Amino acid sequence: MDIASSTISPLGGQLKHSWERIAEQKRQTELAKIPSEWVLAPAVVAEAKKLPSLTDPPFIESLLDPETCRITALDATELLQQMGSGKLAAVQVVTAFCKRAAIAHQVTQNLLEIGFDIAIRRAKELDEYFEANDQLVGPLHGLPFTLKDQFHVKGLETSMGYVGWVNTFEGLKGTNKERNFESELIREFNMLGAVVIGKVLCTNDTCLSSGTRARHTLYWADARTMNTVMTDNSGTEYMGEGVMQALRGSVFGIGTDIGGSVSMPASYNGIFSLKPSNGRISMKGVAGPSPGQQIMPAVAGIMGVSIATIRLVLKSLLSTEPWLSDPYLVPIPWRETEEHHAESGKPGEPYRPAFGIMENDGVVTPHPPVQRALKAVKDALSKRGHKMVPWEPPSNLESEAIHGQIARGDGCADVWEVLRLSGEPEVHEIKGLFDVDGPRDPLPLLKYQEIVAHMKDYRNRYQEYWMSMAEKSGNGKPVDAFISPVTVTAGLLPDKFFYGGYLSCVNVLDLPAVVVPVLFADKSIDEVDENFQPVSAIDKTNMDAYDAEAYHGSPTAVLVVGRRLCEEKVLSLAQMVVEALHGDRPGSDS
Amino acid sequence: MDIASSTISPLGGQLKHSWERIAEQKRQTELAKIPSEWVLAPAVVAEAKKLPSLTDPPFIESLLDPETCRITALDATELLQQMGSGKLAAVQVVTAFCKRAAIAHQVTQNLLEIGFDIAIRRAKELDEYFEANDQLVGPLHGLPFTLKDQFHVKGLETSMGYVGWVNTFEGLKGTNKERNFESELIREFNMLGAVVIGKVLCTNDTCLSSGTRARHTLYWADARTMNTVMTDNSGTEYMGEGVMQALRGSVFGIGTDIGGSVSMPASYNGIFSLKPSNGRISMKGVAGPSPGQQIMPAVAGIMGVSIATIRLVLKSLLSTEPWLSDPYLVPIPWRETEEHHAESGKPGEPYRPAFGIMENDGVVTPHPPVQRALKAVKDALSKRGHKMVPWEPPSNLESEAIHGQIARGDGCADVWEVLRLSGEPEVHEIKGLFDVDGPRDPLPLLKYQEIVAHMKDYRNRYQEYWMSMAEKSGNGKPVDAFISPVTVTAGLLPDKFFYGGYLSCVNVLDLPAVVVPVLFADKSIDEVDENFQPVSAIDKTNMDAYDAEAYHGSPTAVLVVGRRLCEEKVLSLAQMVVEALHGDRPGSDS
Repeated sequence: MDIASSTISPLGGQLKHSWERIAEQKRQTELAKIPSEWVLAPAVVAEAKKLPSLTDPPFIESLLDPETCRITALDATELLQQMGSGKLAAVQVVTAFCKRAAIAHQVTQNLLEIGFDIAIRRAKELDEYFEANDQLVGPLHGLPFTLKDQFHVKGLETSMGYVGWVNTFEGLKGTNKERNFESELIREFNMLGAVVIGKVLCTNDTCLSSGTRARHTLYWADARTMNTVMTDNSGTEYMGEGVMQALRGSVFGIGTDIGGSVSMPASYNGIFSLKPSNGRISMKGVAGPSPGQQIMPAVAGIMGVSIATIRLVLKSLLSTEPWLSDPYLVPIPWRETEEHHAESGKPGEPYRPAFGIMENDGVVTPHPPVQRALKAVKDALSKRGHKMVPWEPPSNLESEAIHGQIARGDGCADVWEVLRLSGEPEVHEIKGLFDVDGPRDPLPLLKYQEIVAHMKDYRNRYQEYWMSMAEKSGNGKPVDAFISPVTVTAGLLPDKFFYGGYLSCVNVLDLPAVVVPVLFADKSIDEVDENFQPVSAIDKTNMDAYDAEAYHGSPTAVLVVGRRLCEEKVLSLAQMVVEALHGDRPGSDS
Repeated sequence: MDIASSTISPLGGQLKHSWERIAEQKRQTELAKIPSEWVLAPAVVAEAKKLPSLTDPPFIESLLDPETCRITALDATELLQQMGSGKLAAVQVVTAFCKRAAIAHQVTQNLLEIGFDIAIRRAKELDEYFEANDQLVGPLHGLPFTLKDQFHVKGLETSMGYVGWVNTFEGLKGTNKERNFESELIREFNMLGAVVIGKVLCTNDTCLSSGTRARHTLYWADARTMNTVMTDNSGTEYMGEGVMQALRGSVFGIGTDIGGSVSMPASYNGIFSLKPSNGRISMKGVAGPSPGQQIMPAVAGIMGVSIATIRLVLKSLLSTEPWLSDPYLVPIPWRETEEHHAESGKPGEPYRPAFGIMENDGVVTPHPPVQRALKAVKDALSKRGHKMVPWEPPSNLESEAIHGQIARGDGCADVWEVLRLSGEPEVHEIKGLFDVDGPRDPLPLLKYQEIVAHMKDYRNRYQEYWMSMAEKSGNGKPVDAFISPVTVTAGLLPDKFFYGGYLSCVNVLDLPAVVVPVLFADKSIDEVDENFQPVSAIDKTNMDAYDAEAYHGSPTAVLVVGRRLCEEKVLSLAQMVVEALHGDRPGSDS
């Protein structure tokens, strides 16, 4: 790679540091993979950046030919049907999504690795198989997907956004694994017929609508993937899988989540996601961070535009019996029975699931749009006869403290060291993780184990609380799921994210959680209650940061949280939420 | 408690230290719970101690009335049938086993807590229920069991053998939990109708036969439970659940295992055991050690005289849906399908499971009786047409090193501190864990996490090896289980236990493991191969320690190891081993 050939930043300045030159080269290399006929004129990109929303109306469709629009509008099931009946070839499907993803990337810079050429080659193989055998390769045949740049894919690089990892395998050279090794999950997707078209910068947060799009900030819990070759410090933009799905650049996306990195981008982009419990989707052979942190490991999650899509992807993955290959997975196949709640009822009396509802965790009050979303869900479910039980479990403040110490108790030395590989400085959002001249001291092991024991105690108490809700559910059983805010905000404003307790608790508890989009923030109705009384400094800080204008138009979601390792059930319960909202979803089309 | 009332040791010496007086008082208090009509004359106890074996012929039966003999000879299924048809009352069954356990205890000192009175009261309740409802309380109705003194049982104390825990709740006074709090597992057993009759000192090792019985040593991996009120330093004897099952003092036993504490006592006492994967049997609300060590947690296991008994207990526990109460359990009910291997075959061709066989791990060669047991199993399975594939996975030396650092990387400060509570000194077997004046320094967290990452890598490589065996199994699938020594010895001689690598690997890998008794050591045939060439110093040390005379008559077993969380399957495969051995089991009746 000729670093010297690219020393001028697109922003005009001279690139002083070698890491800047490597990063710029990397960006240009990837951009150059976009076929010239898909390249947007600079004026179009500039126009897109001025829009309040890219999805309402769908700006990208104005740039696509009708055939590409038609194909990319089909959902996973329809695509499979048309490929299965020979109406569509995998090459057509994959090409259409690559084109759409290419447009999305040029407007939002959300791809770190572009794999259109490899994807189209693979699609041709799938078509050949179909012609020869008259059947699809597998249940995800020809479905293009994107995923977080933590997974290794043959033919693509894995940098996780670290400049120091460019042209290496996780920072090492000459391992023979560079652009060659594949993560277990990729092996499974290959078997199933799904086709990787690119890797996203990270799955985290961004808002397509509202004024927040111009300047994004990553959630600090994901600090380990924050430093990025896509970044320049003058105009930082972090994008991710949430954007890719919202812009329909692929059929589904795979992220990883240790404290909301799947749920947040889904929530802020108006799409669905599942963060499963640890043990159902493989993380074997995935690049860092922190492989020795196995107490609360990151999990792979699924993002898409419908629950049906997420269900299809999970069910297909489980059909490969991934636990035979990954010793950290549990041997639980897809359980249809977990989806059928009606069968749980008394004879002649269908079982009606009950939900816990946490409108406020007593630590930080959600912003008005989030409050409105929760009320909408509560009303819609109540109207359908579901019992809604106030959810007052052990405090999120407790899990938030446990979460931080487990996830970052090691001092994040690995992040510091990767940054040193290239000399790139840490971006400002993660400066607080470090001392001035190095990583913080790790916790002593005994202190760390004390926190693990506290976590165990917390999980036990939470479970006991849940079981105790059998008295209040009205159907004699503990509530089937609980519903809470995803975060306290309807989107992310730079440096205005103060509290992740509604999400970190599901990682501490290892519970499956589904994001269900509900409505859009509306400055004309989402006002702070005049009687609002903050219960703490952070509660006040957060509410003071509410800016009706800035959040206006942001997608707003709720989180549906199920019992550990009961992904089938929580997906079906989330679908009930969707069906309850349908027709009485204020603002959903605004 | 009046400590001063008991200052004379039964061995004649004056008890100088307060911890000695507390321990002696504790022993006497428990002994006094044995009804006078069950108390043995000192001469009988003395006679028993001179016997080479308590089970061959069954010495205890010579001390029991015919009715007690008859009842305690019935297996779990027969007992349930007779109680279900009203032929036997629960009180009769529980009383018979309490009596037998009382005799066993007097001869072997293996009970730390005696609960005969509580058990018989509970049996009366069960009988009342049966009379009123004409059905059993649950699938374990009226079955008396014993368990390791780590589980809390209402009405009994939990000391784990620590003098400092006597009259406390895990070292604390005035918690209101003393003799009152119950572990989750006990709640489940109560629901199922099973009846606790006592708690054993620990589940570890002892040999009923051969000269090794007079002086036992605990396996160091279980060091945390080694200091015991049952011990006096002149004539230490450690007993446990293995003895209780071999002497038929209860219908089944529950132990815990982090490096062989269930498998070893089973192996050395000629009984069966299951050490399951983590996540199937509850450890919620169980006393120490080290609740913050969740990387390779201790698991509860089941011991009994048949696989059918173990199967019944596990299946019954899972029928209570324990994962609803314990957030660390996986929601996997008992799976009948996992037991039916025939169904896995091609049409018209029954599936024949294949086994890996590890006769020698290349680190330490098993003693001659263990070699003979492995050969017997290999021959018996081969004769039935099972393919036996040499098992050469990633080294046990590697897992042994990982095991030690994960289990004791914290420096065992908790053990040290509990000893300080009473002032009792550490027994000599665990002295090596500590510095002279305190626990060792814990590993630094980053070093510890490096080991966890190494463990993950080891588990991945082991799994890959296992999958690769599909090429050699002859049936197109990876082998169904592998068979290995339990340990390199046929029993434990004091200070002659040098290597636990065959067992520690199953904890590092979190695999379910079943002990299957095979034969008895026989000095007339079990001789060291004259061509034996040690591969290492430890290999030499171990073989030099082989003493045909001392081990003569010791039960010798093999370990059948299945895939993670596949307990149903490994139990059924172990049953195949039993059936293959039946009839061609050399030395089994010697």
